[in-house]
Amino acid sequence: MKIDQYSLLKEKINSDKFSSIFVLVDENTDKLCLQIFKERSQIKNFDKILIKSGEQNKNIETCIYVWDQLNLKKADRKSLLINLGGGVLTDLGGFASSTYKRGISFVNIPTTLLGMVDAAHGGKTGIDFKLLKNQIGLFSEPLGVILDSIYLKTLSKSEFINGYAEVVKHSLLTDKSNLDFNSLINLNIHDDIDLIIDNYSEIKNQVVASDKFESNRRKILNLGHTIGHAVETYSYLTNDIDELRHGEAIMVGLITELFISHKTLGFPEIDLINISEHISKYFKKISFSEKDLDKIYDLMIHDKKNQEGKINFVLLKQIGKPLVDQQVNKELFMAAFDYYKQ
Amino acid sequence: MKIDQYSLLKEKINSDKFSSIFVLVDENTDKLCLQIFKERSQIKNFDKILIKSGEQNKNIETCIYVWDQLNLKKADRKSLLINLGGGVLTDLGGFASSTYKRGISFVNIPTTLLGMVDAAHGGKTGIDFKLLKNQIGLFSEPLGVILDSIYLKTLSKSEFINGYAEVVKHSLLTDKSNLDFNSLINLNIHDDIDLIIDNYSEIKNQVVASDKFESNRRKILNLGHTIGHAVETYSYLTNDIDELRHGEAIMVGLITELFISHKTLGFPEIDLINISEHISKYFKKISFSEKDLDKIYDLMIHDKKNQEGKINFVLLKQIGKPLVDQQVNKELFMAAFDYYKQ
Repeated sequence: MKIDQYSLLKEKINSDKFSSIFVLVDENTDKLCLQIFKERSQIKNFDKILIKSGEQNKNIETCIYVWDQLNLKKADRKSLLINLGGGVLTDLGGFASSTYKRGISFVNIPTTLLGMVDAAHGGKTGIDFKLLKNQIGLFSEPLGVILDSIYLKTLSKSEFINGYAEVVKHSLLTDKSNLDFNSLINLNIHDDIDLIIDNYSEIKNQVVASDKFESNRRKILNLGHTIGHAVETYSYLTNDIDELRHGEAIMVGLITELFISHKTLGFPEIDLINISEHISKYFKKISFSEKDLDKIYDLMIHDKKNQEGKINFVLLKQIGKPLVDQQVNKELFMAAFDYYKQ
Repeated sequence: MKIDQYSLLKEKINSDKFSSIFVLVDENTDKLCLQIFKERSQIKNFDKILIKSGEQNKNIETCIYVWDQLNLKKADRKSLLINLGGGVLTDLGGFASSTYKRGISFVNIPTTLLGMVDAAHGGKTGIDFKLLKNQIGLFSEPLGVILDSIYLKTLSKSEFINGYAEVVKHSLLTDKSNLDFNSLINLNIHDDIDLIIDNYSEIKNQVVASDKFESNRRKILNLGHTIGHAVETYSYLTNDIDELRHGEAIMVGLITELFISHKTLGFPEIDLINISEHISKYFKKISFSEKDLDKIYDLMIHDKKNQEGKINFVLLKQIGKPLVDQQVNKELFMAAFDYYKQ
């Protein structure tokens, strides 16, 4: 089945008559994934563009470097960029290609679980700016996304688990009994990985297809992210806590926002407990001081999703029943972290 | 009539509930146009963002400055950016707003004739990169465009005439007898300016509306620009000729490309002569050496509109009858400049 996706890509490349093909990699995917890509795809006539990995390089300087490489290698409007990497790389590569000569085509081949179930889908592209995540970007659909779990074998355990936060989130947003959280906890994260990728990337695609421009329904995907994003950004800014991976931060966001859901919308306590326990199997607890929390709260006010100084949360009434544009005061925010600490 | 456009803008601002309004100006429009804008629009509650004027500042550094200012002034996704200036400013302001937080609304108020009949319309936004014009950008429609000839009174004679090249181009692309080139030469560039703006911005809007993404029909707007853009870029790169304004370069492009049209498609000689004479009333001839022309030819190969190393021209069979994707060899290119020199 995975091979089929590469065949479709090759057919598309032939039918669309691209003038040249570029593959964007970072030092990790260059070493560990590019050879796999060549073997699986049998695409050989491409130029490689190599950037540095990591959220700290998801910035305008790296983007300028990609533009410059495309320029030097004479990419024209009929060139294709294939993004082979995690969410940082597909976000940046999508932005660079969508703005090069007013937009060239791009394909995402996510190499991380996070990319496979989240970042590579939905047409969000972007870079960080002045320490704010995805502050600069635009909506632009990839020509296609190839989901191939073989790349996950190149990841460390902690890199692999990083993407699981989005899987949990997606299972909380659906009320389909074969997909919801109560089904997810019966799957084995290693043996059932292809099923997990297929099921939980589908949920994102369905939500996105129903609402391209995040005006309404798409907002539900922000579950766990209002607090999660602020926690993640804060961890980069401060020396008081370790830098967190996206998944680690989102897990903090999920538990705290579900606690708030319980307090304000009556989200069932038993589900809150089950989810917290399941998450704690994979992710360690982070310690936040009161000073940390004050700063995280301030960062939320800066999030681009928030308008007129209000912070808009997605909360759950029950599993599969999200409500958007929920206002939360600072007291409840602090109480949620008291619960998280326990 | 002009006042109506500001009323419509104010209505739109009220109905769309923008959280904040920013007006982008350069040092010229700050001094000469902003007060007029305030009086005409009666919009007062805005923040000003001031950038440096000129093509040499239409770059990623200026764009980063605008993003940073929006960020510092806490612009959110419901903010509005009003671009008050010439084509450089509306192109850059459109790009900066379309990529800030994945896109905020913008309005263009062109203050030059070039902006009024060309740059401010059609959703092309962008910046120059590595000395290549509009190399980075995207298609993004302004919320609206306000055409008010009062701003033209702030321009020098040479700035004013700069935009006339696009007017001539538009008159060559239409076969409507009340709009075509033979009508245009009967209009007075000063007394009839409102009529000229209305007529010749309409032509661009019609072409653009029929083809948003430049896949086909929109290409006709490149008449005069294949050579013109290369001439303009070259004039910035070299010390051998003076820096040219966009309009001066496009006029060179128009005459040479019409000569090529005459030679390859039988464009009538009498029209070629009439147009060359009309143009020479307003624009002085530029001297190009053979070395200059070699380099201009090389620059054309780099233009983002050209695919697989071929240079695609728009040529005219007759006034109002353009043909796209025409190939021109270097010999004919050189012959066209021989004609231009005469």
